[in-house]
Amino acid sequence: MKIPLHLQKLIEALKRLPGVGSKSAERYAFHLLNWPEARLHELAHLIEDIPLHLGKCDTCGALVDQSRCFFCDDPARDPSILCVVQSFKEIFSLEHTGEFRGRYHVLGGLLNPIDKRGPELLKIDTLKTRIQQTAVKELLIALDSTLEGDATALFLKRELSPYPLKISRLAFGLPLGSSLDYVDQGTLARALSCRLEF
Amino acid sequence: MKIPLHLQKLIEALKRLPGVGSKSAERYAFHLLNWPEARLHELAHLIEDIPLHLGKCDTCGALVDQSRCFFCDDPARDPSILCVVQSFKEIFSLEHTGEFRGRYHVLGGLLNPIDKRGPELLKIDTLKTRIQQTAVKELLIALDSTLEGDATALFLKRELSPYPLKISRLAFGLPLGSSLDYVDQGTLARALSCRLEF
Repeated sequence: MKIPLHLQKLIEALKRLPGVGSKSAERYAFHLLNWPEARLHELAHLIEDIPLHLGKCDTCGALVDQSRCFFCDDPARDPSILCVVQSFKEIFSLEHTGEFRGRYHVLGGLLNPIDKRGPELLKIDTLKTRIQQTAVKELLIALDSTLEGDATALFLKRELSPYPLKISRLAFGLPLGSSLDYVDQGTLARALSCRLEF
Repeated sequence: MKIPLHLQKLIEALKRLPGVGSKSAERYAFHLLNWPEARLHELAHLIEDIPLHLGKCDTCGALVDQSRCFFCDDPARDPSILCVVQSFKEIFSLEHTGEFRGRYHVLGGLLNPIDKRGPELLKIDTLKTRIQQTAVKELLIALDSTLEGDATALFLKRELSPYPLKISRLAFGLPLGSSLDYVDQGTLARALSCRLEF
């Protein structure tokens, strides 16, 4: 099969996007071939300029826009409640809910002995410094409900036990709109043991 | 929801890709944020340089690599059989089969009265010139099996009737690996009427 070299390279590069296989990469590449030049330039520059425009906040690790952190630099946000997340991505999901008005701390990963990810790779020292220096009263752990997430949450709880803090975690239970027939046993067991007064 | 402006623009630009909605565009954008700078540059340049590197053959309309057409400039390909396709994309599908060793002609579209696409928008004049100038013996119509594809095939047949040509079309019938239970009535009817001697 003879395929122009540039097109081949473009397809290979697009295949590095998450969940994009050969078929989708080809589809995207063929679509791009029909884009006007100005639109191609726009997308190319947006991709190329990512390191220039999107940095991370030195304090909390959230994405910053022109060096201003939406969370640390916002006086309306409550500094006494700190939400620990795995990466800056989760901040967007939490912000979408509109329910959280505190600040964030990005850990930068989860503990994972198989991948040799130990606590030294996570931003725990800076978390301790923040707890000491600012009047943090509550630490909300918002990590995945997976083995790694649970292990990291337990590790944090132990590490931070010397500090006068309330440590909380996201609730477990039925997802909204779920039918009991389709909810897995683990979730149902957790929903039972964490049942709420009604 | 506060989202950095550059990230917003990147997500909007990625949403222009076919079949990419908000969720996929966000996923791609977040993935790109973690790419090393060199990889970002590579993808950006591949996108930006599309008009520079990927042109179309003046004769057949296929994609060309540095102005060399894989099909018109290949003496091993049979010039006496010409395959008419809608766009250069279909050439890749046909080439993947490895069954066709003739040359191609890209029409540039299909007739569609609703979209006001008449024959003047298709490359029919250049097709006639090619038939006259080169010793084309067979014209294979490889267009979609849709209303527009059928109308265009019939139009081509009528237009090219004055030329001493064999006009053929891709076969209709059961897709390979199909079960009769799941094949639609139209396909089954066509497979019956076009039945083959066994």
